[in-house]
Amino acid sequence: MTRFGFTIHATDGKARTGTIAMRRGEIRTPAFMPVGTAATVKAMKPEGVRAAGADIILGNTYHLMLRPGAERVARLGGLHRFMNWDRPILTDSGGYQVMSLSELRKITEEGVTFASHLDGSRHMLSPERSMEIQRLLGSDIVMAFDECPKIDQPRDVIAKSMEMSMRWAQRSRDAFDAGGEHAEGAALFGIQQGALDEGLRNESADALSAIGFDGYAIGGLAVGEGQEAMFATLDFAPGQLPQDRPRYLMGVGKPDDIVGAVERGVDMFDCVLPTRSGRNGQAFTWAGPLNMRNARHAEDTAPLDERCPCPTCTTYSRAYIHHLTKSGEMLGAMLMTEHNLWFYQQLMQALRDAIAAGTLAEFARGFRSDYFRG
Amino acid sequence: MTRFGFTIHATDGKARTGTIAMRRGEIRTPAFMPVGTAATVKAMKPEGVRAAGADIILGNTYHLMLRPGAERVARLGGLHRFMNWDRPILTDSGGYQVMSLSELRKITEEGVTFASHLDGSRHMLSPERSMEIQRLLGSDIVMAFDECPKIDQPRDVIAKSMEMSMRWAQRSRDAFDAGGEHAEGAALFGIQQGALDEGLRNESADALSAIGFDGYAIGGLAVGEGQEAMFATLDFAPGQLPQDRPRYLMGVGKPDDIVGAVERGVDMFDCVLPTRSGRNGQAFTWAGPLNMRNARHAEDTAPLDERCPCPTCTTYSRAYIHHLTKSGEMLGAMLMTEHNLWFYQQLMQALRDAIAAGTLAEFARGFRSDYFRG
Repeated sequence: MTRFGFTIHATDGKARTGTIAMRRGEIRTPAFMPVGTAATVKAMKPEGVRAAGADIILGNTYHLMLRPGAERVARLGGLHRFMNWDRPILTDSGGYQVMSLSELRKITEEGVTFASHLDGSRHMLSPERSMEIQRLLGSDIVMAFDECPKIDQPRDVIAKSMEMSMRWAQRSRDAFDAGGEHAEGAALFGIQQGALDEGLRNESADALSAIGFDGYAIGGLAVGEGQEAMFATLDFAPGQLPQDRPRYLMGVGKPDDIVGAVERGVDMFDCVLPTRSGRNGQAFTWAGPLNMRNARHAEDTAPLDERCPCPTCTTYSRAYIHHLTKSGEMLGAMLMTEHNLWFYQQLMQALRDAIAAGTLAEFARGFRSDYFRG
Repeated sequence: MTRFGFTIHATDGKARTGTIAMRRGEIRTPAFMPVGTAATVKAMKPEGVRAAGADIILGNTYHLMLRPGAERVARLGGLHRFMNWDRPILTDSGGYQVMSLSELRKITEEGVTFASHLDGSRHMLSPERSMEIQRLLGSDIVMAFDECPKIDQPRDVIAKSMEMSMRWAQRSRDAFDAGGEHAEGAALFGIQQGALDEGLRNESADALSAIGFDGYAIGGLAVGEGQEAMFATLDFAPGQLPQDRPRYLMGVGKPDDIVGAVERGVDMFDCVLPTRSGRNGQAFTWAGPLNMRNARHAEDTAPLDERCPCPTCTTYSRAYIHHLTKSGEMLGAMLMTEHNLWFYQQLMQALRDAIAAGTLAEFARGFRSDYFRG
């Protein structure tokens, strides 16, 4: 069986639609990966995540290494068995999240030492330890360990950080390849850095291509730069990466971010937005986001979205979801999370269909018109 | 179709097993009713409640009258449509819950005035208003409005309270019967009071029988008197009520409470325990309750209960549920609530089977032996 194959079925402008084939299943691209931070896509059973249309989910190395612990997950048979998800799992490297612990961590060439946000205990992450943890978890797509710098720093700071990330990319590659049986079944992605700078992004892409990865992530974006700056970077960054490998934009994003990034040649996404919003009373619809706490929904018998075939929309009214949300009922979070995951997967399917039909520009125009008029 | 029929299929000592037939479906007795306080059985979809084996759920008049409001529920087509549960719903009268607002309410012969725990707004409940609210909700089994006094009061205080509840029972009957179309499809239960006093309980039973109800609840218990005092009261209270009508012990209880009450002739139960415990990390098993926060479960690959066929037990390990519980993940509450509801319904099925087979005493002995050894 294929360890990792990527077939592009059709292109439309810079956009591509295809299939990633892996031992645990196929991933249709462009793909959106729901985030399962702590070995659970919050408020969802795994069968509901699959029913929504997800081919792959994401797990967080940082959270899982602290609780329940990577060695413990390995003793329990790996993350798939632990959480009852038998399809592919991509794990991040933990780099982004430990960098966010601004006061609690120290970065050296060797790696990062940091204090757990749970109990203050000291931990270390390096390319080697990150690869070990992702192997212990049984990850299908392993991410290289990188530094994700603050975006608004001088070019030389961004350059130095990117260069260290490229040395860490080589160390990640070496450590991954030494992983024995796990390396035979899993894939390793490199992560391009360089913030908003075209030259640095190009250097980073060249360094990664020289090492060689199964796929390539665009890192360091969606960190507060805004959509305009992100799209400006995506006008050149995906094209710097190998044409025949999947390109993964990490941590993105809002539905309109995803549409714009797909138009610019991105194949994979992950974001907490559909799940987190579902717990905070926000529903995504083709007519834009809805705040379900708003009293105008109190007697509205319509579903969240008239066009949505999800279990929430075919069963429950806005009035009921408003009531649950106002009452702080868990079922409100459950129903809205489910709807939001379905909405995101329907959006991805619509993007795949439009690319296959060669009508992406028209689809994107119509999407934005409906979404921002709502 | 039958408005309300109760058929006893078998008896074993004082215990009975039978079927209540109503327009929205049959209720197998002894029955346990999961509590759906705010138009949701917390952390469960209705299809999961049904799959667990529940024939009927309970809704709370007090909570629903305050939010979303009974008139609003009526405008939205009634509680069944609102929350997507098409089988019978029993609603309490609101009496018990407003009595619990000790500092916030005033009781007169007319009824109870109280301040909402949500926003302090003033409200009134009386037999007439309680019947109106339960009619607006579309309840299938309506409970008479009663006073539930503190149990440790002098006999004359308990007697006066019970006598007022009996006058309220007549007013409830009259108001219910004036409810037009709703009264033609729904049932009305009276509520016996009298605390732990056999004479007062008997007077109450006689008063209720004289009015005539579809079923009879044993009220005023499970309010802190302890299992021994409750069982002592249940040694005489069910037998004072009409033999051919279902007897409902309100707010009970722990699994061993239920077994003992069924042995004493009770047919129906409701309690928040399986759902609330599920959110607090407690799992019910045939070997007794488990605290899933306990570190001894951290690497235990066994299910919550080896004998349980529920979706949680056939899929997830104690180790995973421990992790979810420790991490405060909603999925932990979802999986444990589901298991606990299945456990309660399996217990009821086992009780029904034992009564039908004439082996209740043996079953109860075995149950207690396993449950308290665990």
